[in-house]
Amino acid sequence: MSEELFEQLLAGDRAALARAVTIVESVHPDHVKIAGELIKKALQHNNESVRIGITGVPGVGKSTFINSFGSWLATEKNKKVCVLAIDPSSNRSHGSILGDKTRMEKLSILNNVFVRPTPAAGNLGGIALKTRETILLCEAAGYDTILVETVGVGQNEYVADGVVDCLMLLLLPNAGDELQGIKRGIMELADLVVLNKADVTDKSILHQAQMDVTNALYFLPNKFDGWTPPVVQNSLNSDKNSSDIWDQVSQFIDFQKSKGNFQTKRNNQKMEWLKEAIRTKLEAIFFNDPHVKTNIQTASLKWLEGHESPNEIAEKLILNWKKEPGL
Amino acid sequence: MSEELFEQLLAGDRAALARAVTIVESVHPDHVKIAGELIKKALQHNNESVRIGITGVPGVGKSTFINSFGSWLATEKNKKVCVLAIDPSSNRSHGSILGDKTRMEKLSILNNVFVRPTPAAGNLGGIALKTRETILLCEAAGYDTILVETVGVGQNEYVADGVVDCLMLLLLPNAGDELQGIKRGIMELADLVVLNKADVTDKSILHQAQMDVTNALYFLPNKFDGWTPPVVQNSLNSDKNSSDIWDQVSQFIDFQKSKGNFQTKRNNQKMEWLKEAIRTKLEAIFFNDPHVKTNIQTASLKWLEGHESPNEIAEKLILNWKKEPGL
Repeated sequence: MSEELFEQLLAGDRAALARAVTIVESVHPDHVKIAGELIKKALQHNNESVRIGITGVPGVGKSTFINSFGSWLATEKNKKVCVLAIDPSSNRSHGSILGDKTRMEKLSILNNVFVRPTPAAGNLGGIALKTRETILLCEAAGYDTILVETVGVGQNEYVADGVVDCLMLLLLPNAGDELQGIKRGIMELADLVVLNKADVTDKSILHQAQMDVTNALYFLPNKFDGWTPPVVQNSLNSDKNSSDIWDQVSQFIDFQKSKGNFQTKRNNQKMEWLKEAIRTKLEAIFFNDPHVKTNIQTASLKWLEGHESPNEIAEKLILNWKKEPGL
Repeated sequence: MSEELFEQLLAGDRAALARAVTIVESVHPDHVKIAGELIKKALQHNNESVRIGITGVPGVGKSTFINSFGSWLATEKNKKVCVLAIDPSSNRSHGSILGDKTRMEKLSILNNVFVRPTPAAGNLGGIALKTRETILLCEAAGYDTILVETVGVGQNEYVADGVVDCLMLLLLPNAGDELQGIKRGIMELADLVVLNKADVTDKSILHQAQMDVTNALYFLPNKFDGWTPPVVQNSLNSDKNSSDIWDQVSQFIDFQKSKGNFQTKRNNQKMEWLKEAIRTKLEAIFFNDPHVKTNIQTASLKWLEGHESPNEIAEKLILNWKKEPGL
């Protein structure tokens, strides 16, 4: 089954790509097996892509920006654009990211664009793993420009930075000081800052914001030696702005390649990927072991009664499991 | 060493409690051992506490609310108040939560109050684990009211809800629609909603917000059957408001106890705790095994060359480890 599906995916069939991504996201044992085969095949087909993370607080206009910037990349630069999301808030109800496809109307009807709403729930490590696998499938399907959207408050943007080549931070020029505390942590991660909604912002406020952000970036430790993140402005559906932003992304990618950082970062990300895969597998094998399941039930009673520390219980469970032969 | 430290902690020595928390947060092998002993002792001493999570977007005024509400609890209700934080954004630079102690000036000088800034970096599972252990130590030291602050965007509030009895959501009455998408997910988790900064909000806007939030909660699925989260207003340093909020918290706790939900939730949380402890231990033992380290190095080269899938590599590594005797 994976053979035929992968051939269709390679041939650029978007429905096949969507099915492959669904399989990779699934936890069903049959799907896990097929997913492994798909990933192995896709590893032989990765192309020259650029992976861009797009982060910012709620309301900054990430979806509309991606709609406008992505459409420009697809139509003016002939890029094959793929839009993904990292959105752990979709735990209980559906998340807000990419959920509202109406904000991406222009983008989602284009032929050379693949928009994929947020994957199923899970912990951040698991989400990163699924995102890496999805990126790989999209690249095998010929997509060369990967946009990964995430809400930038908390830990999501670290996960995003762990799967992209360039992290773009969207800010509102008039957001005020109360977000400053949050922004500092995220700003240290940014490779490029976009002042969004420039067209609906008072010129003097925009000018002040440009200076403030530039100053702030100047005083922050450099993420990459020799690169100070540029601050560019963006207005809705402005080709000029999209072009400026793409120029800055390209300059950054060139800079990274010239310094050897590009490949180093990708290699580090690949190592993180392997570690996440090992962690996931280790837990799956351990917790699905029938002996372990029984032992955990017995241990749980002791634990609820409070006679042993979680560490002692854990150590015994692991030691017992290790003594049993086979997997 | 743990013996003496724990005695001091039991006797209410705040410096001893602070040292114990530091040990629990540490990853140093010596500390991990002592931490295990401290936790085991603390498990025998947990008291009748109420654990309250306080969440809301940046700028909603969580720290000032905690300063005002916590001080009232400590002075008017004679509670021993402990303030903790779940803040995964402190990965690279220091986080913003509780970092600014000036916002908690009133609170932090009180004798029966223990304020603990955010613990060290880590994944959310690890942060939850450390928070649970810290809560346990604080309760052993006699603290009966635990306030856990977190930024509510993304996954943090799920982690917070996983360690508290009651999750309080702070909202700004005039925050506007653009946060609505985020709020829905968090609102489903709230047991109580506080409209903050009521004193500096126009009366008609406040009235409208009260109606809107009440309506929204009415249409959301109930988190606990029979409990619709009340919506209360809060102004800075208003004893009346603090008293109202405490009444609502107490009513909720009584409701939960009468339905058996209180103990069920705590038991579920304890089971999650055990699972996190097992996961952490399993990873630590596996990745620190010298054979595994060597095997991972060899496997990494194959992986970077792209000949094997991460799943295949992971399975082999785990199988090899399992075949070796002992831990």
